[in-house]
Amino acid sequence: MAAPTTITALAGGVGAARLLRGLVAVADPAEVTAIVNTGDDIVLHGLAISPDLDTITYTLAGAISREQGWGLEGETWHAMGALDRYGGQTWFRLGDQDLATHLYRTQRRSEGATLTEVTAEIVRAWGLALRLLPMSDDRVETRVRVLGEGELGFQEYFVGRQHGVPVESVRFVGAEDAKPGPEVLAAIATAERVVVCPSNPIVSIGPVLAVPGIADALRARRADAVAVSPIIAGAALKGPADRLLTELGHESSVVGVARLYAPYVATMVIDEADAGLAPAVEAAGIRPVVAPTIMHGPDEAAALARVVLEA
Amino acid sequence: MAAPTTITALAGGVGAARLLRGLVAVADPAEVTAIVNTGDDIVLHGLAISPDLDTITYTLAGAISREQGWGLEGETWHAMGALDRYGGQTWFRLGDQDLATHLYRTQRRSEGATLTEVTAEIVRAWGLALRLLPMSDDRVETRVRVLGEGELGFQEYFVGRQHGVPVESVRFVGAEDAKPGPEVLAAIATAERVVVCPSNPIVSIGPVLAVPGIADALRARRADAVAVSPIIAGAALKGPADRLLTELGHESSVVGVARLYAPYVATMVIDEADAGLAPAVEAAGIRPVVAPTIMHGPDEAAALARVVLEA
Repeated sequence: MAAPTTITALAGGVGAARLLRGLVAVADPAEVTAIVNTGDDIVLHGLAISPDLDTITYTLAGAISREQGWGLEGETWHAMGALDRYGGQTWFRLGDQDLATHLYRTQRRSEGATLTEVTAEIVRAWGLALRLLPMSDDRVETRVRVLGEGELGFQEYFVGRQHGVPVESVRFVGAEDAKPGPEVLAAIATAERVVVCPSNPIVSIGPVLAVPGIADALRARRADAVAVSPIIAGAALKGPADRLLTELGHESSVVGVARLYAPYVATMVIDEADAGLAPAVEAAGIRPVVAPTIMHGPDEAAALARVVLEA
Repeated sequence: MAAPTTITALAGGVGAARLLRGLVAVADPAEVTAIVNTGDDIVLHGLAISPDLDTITYTLAGAISREQGWGLEGETWHAMGALDRYGGQTWFRLGDQDLATHLYRTQRRSEGATLTEVTAEIVRAWGLALRLLPMSDDRVETRVRVLGEGELGFQEYFVGRQHGVPVESVRFVGAEDAKPGPEVLAAIATAERVVVCPSNPIVSIGPVLAVPGIADALRARRADAVAVSPIIAGAALKGPADRLLTELGHESSVVGVARLYAPYVATMVIDEADAGLAPAVEAAGIRPVVAPTIMHGPDEAAALARVVLEA
């Protein structure tokens, strides 16, 4: 059986960006679509900032900072340095070149372009052939209720508190009234392979599923859908997925992830470290595929992408 | 007679900034107030940009780029360079450190601070003691009708077209409904000396006079008010004041300026090059004081400031 050639992936930030880098290396990039979480988006200094969209764009363009895992390689920080003079909000670090992305996005939005349209322009400017679709052109805002502090915006929790505080609940403000981006449902319906990237199930994939219509579209493609577990040996490689799962009453393991994803995917790739949990994943209703899932570099990303396409 | 110690100046950009630098050198800076044109303000990339306020702040802080006459000395341009990748709007050049001023202003405005309040914060952050008052906290927009092109925003005309196109008319959109900034009228009423800086009479001082209440407040102080002519030997040192005066039916000379300012000032400092026109200025109803008015550096600015205070 030939590997599927049209691929639609649900994506958050860093982990998704790495798998997508693998997918565009082993498939025709023009046939790859990523539907990206925008619940993390923030307006700061009047600028429309879309961290997950930018992390994917910069990663696929080979421009991401290897050291940071976010932002641009060789970035300078003169604007943030000068903002310190004013006691401005510098907790969310924006490099000088990265600022241009937000300036452009904000200007185009003010001219009437949708987030979907301006995202396509940005992706094209970086010379990328894949299609990057914001989950919605409507504002959906992930908000996190934190023990003792009340509710925070996602970036206040994630960056401002370094996701080091206990979470009581998460909600996606605006999701109920949001519509999927104009090409989103068709991209799910027509793909030969649907992929759920190794992103945070609660705050990266969760907002995408919360946009009315997307979860139903996924359920209809369950047989062709493959997830990659973001949890390896009980822990997240990066970010708070493990803590969030536990704090919100789920199991921080591939089994906990399998239970969340069972309505949407028939297959899940789990790391070799979790081979022993394969029967429990199976019991949760998902066929496990055991493979190395840590993507240190392009070769591992491409190998994992092949597993996902051939699973 | 002792020179006046409390000073309120009407100000545009570069010329005003230089005279203000002189005024704070020869008087107590804490007793100097500038009421600044905001008709040139522009929202670009979602950012609230106030060019005249910033030119004055940077000049008085000794941070203005000497070469450009605007922006910051030692500025870098990484954001603009990166914006080129997107085909973004780079005609209005914003340096990386300068961007921080606009980021801060925009953020504070979005938090509910008035332009007057955020301007005071910025001035304080630069360690300046003078008081900088936007002419209004309401939006007033200078628009320029250009031969064959229709109406342009001021910066499109001034920066985008390098003010090299013939102007048919100028208007100040929003001025009729604008209120003077909260401290503006009192600053005019209580100053011992009112100064009209050597700024463009049409597009720098014009918008200030167009805010209801300010012209009347000035008329009441005419005897104590001194203008410095921005026109020397028929020409503007910088910018399109000479062309604009001619195109809009005025005389491009100290006499033309005197006719415009006669309702507001009893005295005008004119350059030595225009000594021969002193009788015509007198005939326009303004007492001329002849002095060197070109401010190459701080010494000439201080000398001119002394003339203005002692006139």
